[in-house]
Amino acid sequence: MKVITVREKILKANSQAARENRARFSRKRIFVINILGSPGAGKTSLLERFAQTGGIAFSVMEGDPETALDAERMEKAGASVVQIITKGSCHLDANMVQAALPRSDLDGKDFLFVENVGNLLCPASFDLGEHIRIVVLSTTEGADKPFKYPAAFKTAQSVILNKTDLLPYIDFDLDLFNRGVAQVTPKAKVFSVSCRTGEGIDELVEWIKKLKK
Amino acid sequence: MKVITVREKILKANSQAARENRARFSRKRIFVINILGSPGAGKTSLLERFAQTGGIAFSVMEGDPETALDAERMEKAGASVVQIITKGSCHLDANMVQAALPRSDLDGKDFLFVENVGNLLCPASFDLGEHIRIVVLSTTEGADKPFKYPAAFKTAQSVILNKTDLLPYIDFDLDLFNRGVAQVTPKAKVFSVSCRTGEGIDELVEWIKKLKK
Repeated sequence: MKVITVREKILKANSQAARENRARFSRKRIFVINILGSPGAGKTSLLERFAQTGGIAFSVMEGDPETALDAERMEKAGASVVQIITKGSCHLDANMVQAALPRSDLDGKDFLFVENVGNLLCPASFDLGEHIRIVVLSTTEGADKPFKYPAAFKTAQSVILNKTDLLPYIDFDLDLFNRGVAQVTPKAKVFSVSCRTGEGIDELVEWIKKLKK
Repeated sequence: MKVITVREKILKANSQAARENRARFSRKRIFVINILGSPGAGKTSLLERFAQTGGIAFSVMEGDPETALDAERMEKAGASVVQIITKGSCHLDANMVQAALPRSDLDGKDFLFVENVGNLLCPASFDLGEHIRIVVLSTTEGADKPFKYPAAFKTAQSVILNKTDLLPYIDFDLDLFNRGVAQVTPKAKVFSVSCRTGEGIDELVEWIKKLKK
Protein backbone atom coordinates (compact mmCIF):
# COMPACT_ATOMS: atom_id res chain seq x y z
CA MET A 1 0.00 0.00 0.00
CA LYS A 2 2.82 2.40 0.83
CA VAL A 3 4.38 1.91 -2.59
CA ILE A 4 1.11 2.81 -4.29
CA THR A 5 0.88 5.95 -2.18
CA VAL A 6 4.40 7.02 -3.15
CA ARG A 7 3.63 6.27 -6.79
CA GLU A 8 0.48 8.41 -6.59
CA LYS A 9 2.49 11.25 -5.04
CA ILE A 10 5.09 11.00 -7.80
CA LEU A 11 2.44 11.03 -10.51
CA LYS A 12 0.61 13.96 -8.86
CA ALA A 13 3.81 16.01 -8.66
CA ASN A 14 4.53 15.08 -12.27
CA SER A 15 1.06 16.22 -13.40
CA GLN A 16 1.60 19.60 -11.75
CA ALA A 17 4.96 20.09 -13.55
CA ALA A 18 3.38 18.86 -16.80
CA ARG A 19 0.60 21.48 -16.52
CA GLU A 20 3.24 24.18 -15.98
CA ASN A 21 5.15 22.95 -19.03
CA ARG A 22 2.02 22.90 -21.19
CA ALA A 23 1.08 26.45 -20.18
CA ARG A 24 4.62 27.58 -20.99
CA PHE A 25 4.57 25.85 -24.39
CA SER A 26 1.21 27.44 -25.23
CA ARG A 27 2.51 30.93 -24.31
CA LYS A 28 5.48 30.36 -26.60
CA ARG A 29 3.16 28.93 -29.29
CA ILE A 30 5.18 25.70 -29.46
CA PHE A 31 3.39 22.42 -30.26
CA VAL A 32 4.97 19.57 -28.33
CA ILE A 33 5.02 15.92 -29.42
CA ASN A 34 6.15 13.16 -27.04
CA ILE A 35 7.60 10.25 -29.05
CA LEU A 36 7.38 6.79 -27.47
CA GLY A 37 8.76 3.47 -28.68
CA SER A 38 11.01 0.50 -27.94
CA PRO A 39 14.80 0.74 -28.19
CA GLY A 40 15.66 0.81 -31.88
CA ALA A 41 12.10 1.36 -33.13
CA GLY A 42 13.39 4.29 -35.19
CA LYS A 43 12.49 7.36 -33.14
CA THR A 44 15.75 9.18 -33.85
CA SER A 45 15.76 8.05 -37.49
CA LEU A 46 12.29 9.58 -37.87
CA LEU A 47 13.55 12.93 -36.54
CA GLU A 48 16.54 12.73 -38.89
CA ARG A 49 14.07 12.31 -41.76
CA PHE A 50 12.05 15.35 -40.57
CA ALA A 51 15.24 17.43 -40.57
CA GLN A 52 16.11 16.18 -44.05
CA THR A 53 12.61 16.62 -45.51
CA GLY A 54 12.24 20.17 -44.20
CA GLY A 55 9.00 22.10 -43.86
CA ILE A 56 8.79 21.79 -40.06
CA ALA A 57 10.59 24.33 -37.86
CA PHE A 58 11.44 22.18 -34.84
CA SER A 59 13.67 21.64 -31.86
CA VAL A 60 14.43 18.28 -30.21
CA MET A 61 14.87 16.93 -26.69
CA GLU A 62 16.55 13.53 -26.61
CA GLY A 63 15.94 11.24 -23.61
CA ASP A 64 18.34 8.36 -23.05
CA PRO A 65 19.40 6.30 -20.03
CA GLU A 66 23.04 6.91 -21.00
CA THR A 67 25.14 8.62 -23.71
CA ALA A 68 24.57 11.66 -25.96
CA LEU A 69 24.71 9.53 -29.11
CA ASP A 70 21.20 10.56 -30.24
CA ALA A 71 21.88 14.29 -29.74
CA GLU A 72 25.04 13.87 -31.83
CA ARG A 73 22.96 12.29 -34.59
CA MET A 74 20.45 15.15 -34.47
CA GLU A 75 23.23 17.76 -34.61
CA LYS A 76 24.67 16.05 -37.65
CA ALA A 77 21.20 16.21 -39.21
CA GLY A 78 21.22 19.97 -38.59
CA ALA A 79 18.56 20.05 -35.87
CA SER A 80 18.58 22.09 -32.67
CA VAL A 81 18.84 19.55 -29.85
CA VAL A 82 19.20 19.11 -26.10
CA GLN A 83 20.18 15.75 -24.57
CA ILE A 84 18.62 14.57 -21.32
CA ILE A 85 20.53 11.67 -19.77
CA THR A 86 18.29 9.94 -17.22
CA LYS A 87 21.17 7.99 -15.60
CA GLY A 88 19.42 4.70 -16.11
CA SER A 89 15.90 5.90 -15.31
CA CYS A 90 13.35 4.22 -17.54
CA HIS A 91 11.35 7.27 -18.65
CA LEU A 92 11.40 11.05 -18.92
CA ASP A 93 9.27 13.04 -16.49
CA ALA A 94 7.87 16.58 -16.59
CA ASN A 95 10.53 17.93 -14.23
CA MET A 96 13.36 16.66 -16.46
CA VAL A 97 11.76 18.45 -19.41
CA GLN A 98 11.27 21.60 -17.32
CA ALA A 99 14.91 21.54 -16.24
CA ALA A 100 16.07 21.12 -19.84
CA LEU A 101 13.94 23.97 -21.23
CA PRO A 102 16.42 26.80 -20.53
CA ARG A 103 18.96 24.95 -22.71
CA SER A 104 16.41 24.45 -25.50
CA ASP A 105 16.31 26.82 -28.47
CA LEU A 106 12.63 27.38 -29.24
CA ASP A 107 12.93 30.78 -30.97
CA GLY A 108 11.21 30.69 -34.34
CA LYS A 109 10.25 27.05 -33.87
CA ASP A 110 6.74 25.65 -34.28
CA PHE A 111 7.35 22.20 -32.81
CA LEU A 112 9.30 20.55 -30.01
CA PHE A 113 9.80 16.80 -30.41
CA VAL A 114 10.61 15.06 -27.14
CA GLU A 115 12.10 11.66 -27.85
CA ASN A 116 11.43 9.57 -24.77
CA VAL A 117 13.65 6.78 -23.40
CA GLY A 118 13.43 3.60 -25.51
CA ASN A 119 10.79 1.71 -23.54
CA LEU A 120 7.26 0.70 -24.48
CA LEU A 121 6.08 0.65 -20.84
CA CYS A 122 7.12 3.27 -18.25
CA PRO A 123 7.02 6.45 -20.42
CA ALA A 124 3.28 5.88 -20.96
CA SER A 125 2.51 6.85 -17.34
CA PHE A 126 4.27 10.23 -17.37
CA ASP A 127 2.71 13.33 -18.91
CA LEU A 128 5.54 15.66 -19.93
CA GLY A 129 3.27 18.56 -20.80
CA GLU A 130 3.06 17.51 -24.44
CA HIS A 131 0.12 18.25 -26.70
CA ILE A 132 0.07 14.83 -28.33
CA ARG A 133 1.91 11.52 -28.18
CA ILE A 134 2.99 9.36 -31.04
CA VAL A 135 4.24 5.81 -30.71
CA VAL A 136 6.76 4.38 -33.16
CA LEU A 137 6.63 0.60 -33.69
CA SER A 138 8.99 -1.13 -36.10
CA THR A 139 7.75 -4.04 -38.22
CA THR A 140 10.63 -6.18 -36.90
CA GLU A 141 9.23 -5.96 -33.34
CA GLY A 142 6.22 -8.01 -34.34
CA ALA A 143 2.55 -7.32 -34.96
CA ASP A 144 1.33 -8.37 -31.50
CA LYS A 145 2.75 -5.36 -29.65
CA PRO A 146 -0.44 -3.21 -29.39
CA PHE A 147 -2.10 -6.13 -27.53
CA LYS A 148 0.91 -6.80 -25.29
CA TYR A 149 1.88 -3.18 -24.50
CA PRO A 150 -1.50 -1.40 -24.61
CA ALA A 151 -0.69 1.54 -22.31
CA ALA A 152 1.71 3.23 -24.75
CA PHE A 153 -0.67 2.74 -27.68
CA LYS A 154 -3.82 3.80 -25.80
CA THR A 155 -2.57 7.30 -25.11
CA ALA A 156 -1.08 7.90 -28.57
CA GLN A 157 -2.84 10.07 -31.17
CA SER A 158 -0.77 8.44 -33.87
CA VAL A 159 0.92 5.09 -34.45
CA ILE A 160 3.88 5.12 -36.84
CA LEU A 161 4.69 1.70 -38.25
CA ASN A 162 8.36 1.99 -39.24
CA LYS A 163 10.75 -0.25 -41.23
CA THR A 164 8.19 -1.15 -43.90
CA ASP A 165 11.17 -1.73 -46.24
CA LEU A 166 11.91 -4.93 -44.26
CA LEU A 167 8.41 -6.42 -44.75
CA PRO A 168 9.54 -8.70 -47.63
CA TYR A 169 12.13 -10.34 -45.35
CA ILE A 170 10.11 -10.93 -42.17
CA ASP A 171 6.84 -12.53 -41.07
CA PHE A 172 4.77 -9.52 -40.08
CA ASP A 173 1.07 -10.21 -39.62
CA LEU A 174 -0.43 -6.91 -40.85
CA ASP A 175 -3.95 -8.13 -40.08
CA LEU A 176 -3.02 -8.81 -36.44
CA PHE A 177 -1.40 -5.37 -36.18
CA ASN A 178 -4.52 -3.68 -37.60
CA ARG A 179 -6.76 -5.60 -35.21
CA GLY A 180 -4.52 -4.60 -32.29
CA VAL A 181 -4.64 -0.91 -33.21
CA ALA A 182 -8.42 -1.07 -33.79
CA GLN A 183 -8.95 -2.65 -30.36
CA VAL A 184 -6.44 -0.71 -28.27
CA THR A 185 -6.28 2.72 -29.88
CA PRO A 186 -9.08 2.97 -32.48
CA LYS A 187 -8.88 6.75 -32.89
CA ALA A 188 -5.12 6.85 -33.58
CA LYS A 189 -4.01 7.93 -37.04
CA VAL A 190 -1.76 5.19 -38.48
CA PHE A 191 1.17 5.90 -40.80
CA SER A 192 3.38 3.31 -42.47
CA VAL A 193 6.89 4.60 -43.13
CA SER A 194 10.43 3.54 -43.82
CA CYS A 195 12.97 5.90 -42.29
CA ARG A 196 15.59 4.04 -44.31
CA THR A 197 14.06 4.66 -47.76
CA GLY A 198 11.96 7.71 -46.91
CA GLU A 199 8.73 6.01 -47.97
CA GLY A 200 5.65 7.51 -46.30
CA ILE A 201 7.54 10.37 -44.62
CA ASP A 202 6.02 13.17 -46.73
CA GLU A 203 2.47 12.19 -45.80
CA LEU A 204 3.40 12.10 -42.11
CA VAL A 205 5.12 15.50 -42.32
CA GLU A 206 1.99 17.01 -43.91
CA TRP A 207 -0.14 15.63 -41.06
CA ILE A 208 2.24 17.05 -38.43
CA LYS A 209 2.28 20.50 -40.07
CA LYS A 210 -1.50 20.69 -39.73
CA LEU A 211 -1.40 19.91 -36.01
CA LYS A 212 -0.36 23.47 -35.13
CA LYS A 213 -2.98 25.91 -36.25
CA MET B 1 14.68 10.75 -0.43
CA LYS B 2 11.55 8.89 0.53
CA VAL B 3 11.27 7.39 -2.94
CA ILE B 4 14.82 6.07 -2.75
CA THR B 5 14.07 4.51 0.64
CA VAL B 6 10.99 2.75 -0.71
CA ARG B 7 12.98 1.58 -3.72
CA GLU B 8 15.67 0.18 -1.43
CA LYS B 9 13.03 -1.61 0.64
CA ILE B 10 11.50 -3.08 -2.52
CA LEU B 11 14.89 -4.28 -3.77
CA LYS B 12 15.79 -5.71 -0.36
CA ALA B 13 12.52 -7.67 -0.17
CA ASN B 14 13.12 -8.82 -3.75
CA SER B 15 16.64 -10.05 -2.91
CA GLN B 16 15.26 -12.11 -0.02
CA ALA B 17 12.66 -13.78 -2.26
CA ALA B 18 15.32 -14.29 -4.96
CA ARG B 19 17.57 -16.10 -2.47
CA GLU B 20 14.68 -18.36 -1.50
CA ASN B 21 13.97 -19.09 -5.17
CA ARG B 22 17.63 -19.88 -5.88
CA ALA B 23 17.84 -22.26 -2.93
CA ARG B 24 14.68 -23.99 -4.13
CA PHE B 25 15.99 -24.29 -7.70
CA SER B 26 19.26 -25.76 -6.42
CA ARG B 27 17.41 -28.34 -4.32
CA LYS B 28 15.42 -29.34 -7.40
CA ARG B 29 18.61 -29.32 -9.50
CA ILE B 30 17.08 -26.85 -11.99
CA PHE B 31 19.34 -24.34 -13.73
CA VAL B 32 17.49 -21.05 -14.22
CA ILE B 33 18.15 -18.54 -16.99
CA ASN B 34 16.58 -15.06 -16.92
CA ILE B 35 16.14 -13.78 -20.49
CA LEU B 36 16.16 -10.00 -20.98
CA GLY B 37 15.57 -7.93 -24.11
CA SER B 38 13.49 -5.23 -25.81
CA PRO B 39 9.98 -5.94 -27.11
CA GLY B 40 10.36 -8.00 -30.27
CA ALA B 41 14.07 -8.79 -29.81
CA GLY B 42 13.24 -12.46 -30.32
CA LYS B 43 13.13 -13.92 -26.81
CA THR B 44 10.11 -16.13 -27.49
CA SER B 45 11.39 -17.08 -30.94
CA LEU B 46 14.63 -18.25 -29.33
CA LEU B 47 12.69 -20.51 -26.94
CA GLU B 48 10.65 -21.86 -29.87
CA ARG B 49 13.96 -22.77 -31.55
CA PHE B 50 15.19 -24.52 -28.38
CA ALA B 51 11.98 -26.59 -28.34
CA GLN B 52 12.40 -27.43 -32.01
CA THR B 53 16.12 -28.24 -31.80
CA GLY B 54 15.72 -30.51 -28.77
CA GLY B 55 18.50 -31.67 -26.47
CA ILE B 56 17.48 -29.41 -23.57
CA ALA B 57 14.84 -30.57 -21.08
CA PHE B 58 13.26 -27.27 -20.10
CA SER B 59 10.24 -25.48 -18.74
CA VAL B 60 9.32 -21.83 -19.43
CA MET B 61 7.88 -18.89 -17.50
CA GLU B 62 6.60 -16.12 -19.75
CA GLY B 63 6.43 -12.57 -18.37
CA ASP B 64 4.26 -10.05 -20.22
CA PRO B 65 2.48 -6.83 -19.25
CA GLU B 66 -0.69 -8.19 -20.88
CA THR B 67 -1.95 -11.26 -22.81
CA ALA B 68 -0.98 -14.94 -22.81
CA LEU B 69 0.13 -14.79 -26.46
CA ASP B 70 3.68 -15.93 -25.68
CA ALA B 71 2.53 -18.88 -23.57
CA GLU B 72 0.26 -19.92 -26.45
CA ARG B 73 3.28 -19.83 -28.77
CA MET B 74 5.32 -21.96 -26.38
CA GLU B 75 2.51 -24.49 -26.02
CA LYS B 76 2.29 -24.78 -29.79
CA ALA B 77 6.04 -25.41 -29.81
CA GLY B 78 5.46 -28.27 -27.37
CA ALA B 79 7.09 -26.68 -24.32
CA SER B 80 5.84 -26.74 -20.74
CA VAL B 81 4.94 -23.14 -19.92
CA VAL B 82 3.42 -20.84 -17.30
CA GLN B 83 2.32 -17.29 -18.16
CA ILE B 84 2.85 -14.45 -15.71
CA ILE B 85 0.82 -11.35 -16.60
CA THR B 86 2.28 -8.34 -14.78
CA LYS B 87 -0.78 -6.11 -15.45
CA GLY B 88 1.35 -3.43 -17.00
CA SER B 89 4.30 -3.71 -14.59
CA CYS B 90 7.58 -3.19 -16.42
CA HIS B 91 9.53 -6.18 -15.07
CA LEU B 92 9.21 -9.52 -13.32
CA ASP B 93 10.23 -9.76 -9.67
CA ALA B 94 11.24 -12.67 -7.45
CA ASN B 95 7.84 -12.83 -5.75
CA MET B 96 6.02 -13.17 -9.08
CA VAL B 97 8.31 -16.08 -9.96
CA GLN B 98 7.81 -17.62 -6.51
CA ALA B 99 4.03 -17.36 -6.86
CA ALA B 100 4.15 -18.98 -10.31
CA LEU B 101 6.34 -21.92 -9.22
CA PRO B 102 3.49 -24.19 -7.99
CA ARG B 103 1.99 -24.00 -11.50
CA SER B 104 5.35 -24.79 -13.12
CA ASP B 105 6.18 -28.33 -14.21
CA LEU B 106 9.84 -28.87 -13.34
CA ASP B 107 9.79 -32.67 -13.04
CA GLY B 108 12.50 -34.20 -15.20
CA LYS B 109 13.59 -30.77 -16.40
CA ASP B 110 17.17 -29.48 -16.31
CA PHE B 111 16.45 -25.85 -17.15
CA LEU B 112 13.87 -23.17 -16.44
CA PHE B 113 13.88 -20.24 -18.87
CA VAL B 114 12.23 -17.14 -17.46
CA GLU B 115 11.38 -14.76 -20.27
CA ASN B 116 11.21 -11.33 -18.71
CA VAL B 117 8.95 -8.46 -19.80
CA GLY B 118 10.15 -6.84 -23.06
CA ASN B 119 12.16 -3.95 -21.64
CA LEU B 120 15.88 -3.26 -21.76
CA LEU B 121 15.83 -1.21 -18.54
CA CYS B 122 13.76 -2.18 -15.47
CA PRO B 123 14.26 -5.99 -15.49
CA ALA B 124 18.02 -5.45 -14.99
CA SER B 125 17.47 -4.30 -11.37
CA PHE B 126 15.50 -7.34 -10.20
CA ASP B 127 17.16 -10.64 -9.28
CA LEU B 128 14.61 -13.41 -9.81
CA GLY B 129 16.76 -16.11 -8.23
CA GLU B 130 18.22 -17.08 -11.60
CA HIS B 131 21.66 -18.63 -12.04
CA ILE B 132 22.56 -16.58 -15.10
CA ARG B 133 21.09 -13.88 -17.31
CA ILE B 134 21.21 -13.63 -21.04
CA VAL B 135 20.26 -10.56 -23.04
CA VAL B 136 18.81 -10.86 -26.54
CA LEU B 137 19.47 -7.93 -28.90
CA SER B 138 18.20 -7.93 -32.47
CA THR B 139 20.32 -6.44 -35.24
CA THR B 140 17.37 -4.22 -36.25
CA GLU B 141 17.53 -2.42 -32.88
CA GLY B 142 20.89 -0.93 -33.76
CA ALA B 143 24.48 -1.49 -32.70
CA ASP B 144 24.60 1.33 -30.12
CA LYS B 145 22.38 -0.39 -27.56
CA PRO B 146 25.09 -1.77 -25.20
CA PHE B 147 26.33 1.82 -24.71
CA LYS B 148 22.84 3.27 -24.27
CA TYR B 149 21.33 0.52 -22.07
CA PRO B 150 24.37 -0.73 -20.13
CA ALA B 151 22.58 -2.10 -17.04
CA ALA B 152 20.97 -5.02 -18.86
CA PHE B 153 24.20 -5.92 -20.66
CA LYS B 154 26.45 -5.53 -17.60
CA THR B 155 24.72 -8.28 -15.63
CA ALA B 156 24.38 -10.72 -18.53
CA GLN B 157 26.67 -13.75 -18.89
CA SER B 158 25.75 -13.99 -22.55
CA VAL B 159 24.66 -11.59 -25.29
CA ILE B 160 22.64 -13.14 -28.13
CA LEU B 161 22.66 -11.05 -31.30
CA ASN B 162 19.50 -12.15 -33.11
CA LYS B 163 18.11 -11.52 -36.62
CA THR B 164 21.46 -11.90 -38.38
CA ASP B 165 19.46 -12.91 -41.47
CA LEU B 166 18.44 -9.24 -41.84
CA LEU B 167 22.02 -7.90 -41.86
CA PRO B 168 22.12 -7.57 -45.68
CA TYR B 169 19.08 -5.25 -45.59
CA ILE B 170 20.02 -2.89 -42.74
CA ASP B 171 22.90 -0.66 -41.65
CA PHE B 172 24.24 -2.50 -38.61
CA ASP B 173 27.65 -1.33 -37.41
CA LEU B 174 29.15 -4.61 -36.18
CA ASP B 175 32.34 -2.86 -35.07
CA LEU B 176 30.34 -0.47 -32.85
CA PHE B 177 28.41 -3.41 -31.37
CA ASN B 178 31.63 -5.28 -30.61
CA ARG B 179 33.17 -2.20 -28.99
CA GLY B 180 30.01 -1.73 -26.88
CA VAL B 181 30.07 -5.32 -25.65
CA ALA B 182 33.82 -5.13 -24.97
CA GLN B 183 33.37 -1.97 -22.90
CA VAL B 184 30.14 -2.75 -21.06
CA THR B 185 30.19 -6.52 -20.60
CA PRO B 186 33.63 -7.83 -21.61
CA LYS B 187 33.22 -11.28 -20.03
CA ALA B 188 29.91 -12.06 -21.73
CA LYS B 189 29.86 -14.88 -24.26
CA VAL B 190 28.48 -13.53 -27.56
CA PHE B 191 26.39 -15.62 -29.96
CA SER B 192 25.11 -14.51 -33.36
CA VAL B 193 21.90 -16.25 -34.35
CA SER B 194 18.88 -16.05 -36.57
CA CYS B 195 15.77 -17.49 -34.97
CA ARG B 196 14.12 -17.23 -38.38
CA THR B 197 16.63 -19.41 -40.30
CA GLY B 198 18.06 -21.34 -37.33
CA GLU B 199 21.60 -20.15 -38.02
CA GLY B 200 23.81 -20.27 -34.92
CA ILE B 201 21.21 -21.98 -32.72
CA ASP B 202 23.06 -25.33 -32.43
CA GLU B 203 26.20 -23.68 -31.05
CA LEU B 204 24.13 -21.77 -28.49
CA VAL B 205 22.27 -24.92 -27.44
CA GLU B 206 25.60 -26.73 -26.91
CA TRP B 207 26.80 -23.88 -24.67
CA ILE B 208 23.58 -23.93 -22.63
CA LYS B 209 23.74 -27.71 -22.15
CA LYS B 210 27.18 -27.35 -20.54
CA LEU B 211 25.95 -24.74 -18.03
CA LYS B 212 24.34 -27.41 -15.84
CA LYS B 213 26.92 -29.81 -14.55
